[in-house]
Amino acid sequence: MRRGRPTVHKAFDEATAILAGDSLLTLAFDILSRPETHPDAAIRVELISALAKAAGVGGMAGGQMLDLAAEGRFANGGQSPLAFDDIKMLQSMKTGALLSFACASGGMLGNARPKARTALARYGSAIGEAFQIADDLLDVSGDPATVGKATGKDAAAHKATFVSLLGVAGARERLNALVDEAESAVTSLGEDGSVLKAAAHFIASRRN
Amino acid sequence: MRRGRPTVHKAFDEATAILAGDSLLTLAFDILSRPETHPDAAIRVELISALAKAAGVGGMAGGQMLDLAAEGRFANGGQSPLAFDDIKMLQSMKTGALLSFACASGGMLGNARPKARTALARYGSAIGEAFQIADDLLDVSGDPATVGKATGKDAAAHKATFVSLLGVAGARERLNALVDEAESAVTSLGEDGSVLKAAAHFIASRRN
Repeated sequence: MRRGRPTVHKAFDEATAILAGDSLLTLAFDILSRPETHPDAAIRVELISALAKAAGVGGMAGGQMLDLAAEGRFANGGQSPLAFDDIKMLQSMKTGALLSFACASGGMLGNARPKARTALARYGSAIGEAFQIADDLLDVSGDPATVGKATGKDAAAHKATFVSLLGVAGARERLNALVDEAESAVTSLGEDGSVLKAAAHFIASRRN
Repeated sequence: MRRGRPTVHKAFDEATAILAGDSLLTLAFDILSRPETHPDAAIRVELISALAKAAGVGGMAGGQMLDLAAEGRFANGGQSPLAFDDIKMLQSMKTGALLSFACASGGMLGNARPKARTALARYGSAIGEAFQIADDLLDVSGDPATVGKATGKDAAAHKATFVSLLGVAGARERLNALVDEAESAVTSLGEDGSVLKAAAHFIASRRN
């Protein structure tokens, strides 16, 4: 279940879910390659290169594989060996890279100055980790009806998360520090950064 | 089994196979986006756009879905409703589009004249269908030890293929006609087309 609705592999089957994923991943590159995305082919290629790095083996797919490998080691009787830095790297690949790309791509499309690009990258990295901590906190303390998916899954799977490593209070403290970091990163953008600041707060306070 | 070795989802597991697929699909776009591929960003974008169309919902992924849908209809008690034109479209999406891209991309990289590009597209389309017919024929009459995978799977699944629709003799006749078509398409390329002609013959005569 996700957001109260069955996932594709439950509503249909695994093969359909895999092909839908492949189709959507490919569609993203298709869209970025179109002139409507940006008239300058060099900028389209820059976006495509950045998305490929964020989604591929050094990003989302690789992070998901590290996650599965950690689960596999635990299932085979070993303790999950993931320490704080392992979790941080895993999550920065699994979800952080794509969130960072989403932020950085705005700078590429708008041909932002280097300073603004650095600000967007810092912001993206901070909200990437913040999003994951908020997710871990919802799994511990969220209401399944509101969250829209089962909760308590991480603890049941003895999964190492930011919350299992830092505790609920420690994780919430780190979440707040990351929101501050995200806010401070985009302060230099002035009024242009206000929506981004609001988004950072939304991520930390979301209930689903 | 593929080429005598277990497939990734057997050697490891389904999740690993899915992530390896996502990683490799993404890596293809990553490689095409690099300046080493071609110094001109406009040509890199052309390649990326063509690959996305060949791999996505209008190509490989969509063709695979049509294939599964046909199997599903059969499993649910209906006759497989695929006629010759359905199979042709399904296969041109599932395998033909990517083979055509492989041929057309050479023309893009070499900045070929329109006439040569048309020749490569015709060639790619012909060998795409030829490759699939050869595959269907191997499933009927190949030796599993040589083919490197189980044979007889299509008939066991009551799957509509070029061979089930045309018969072995009819399919072999069409295969030969497609090789002729592929050869004739690249005759205008002169000596440059000789390797392509040899490849078309290899596809029709391969034993695995």
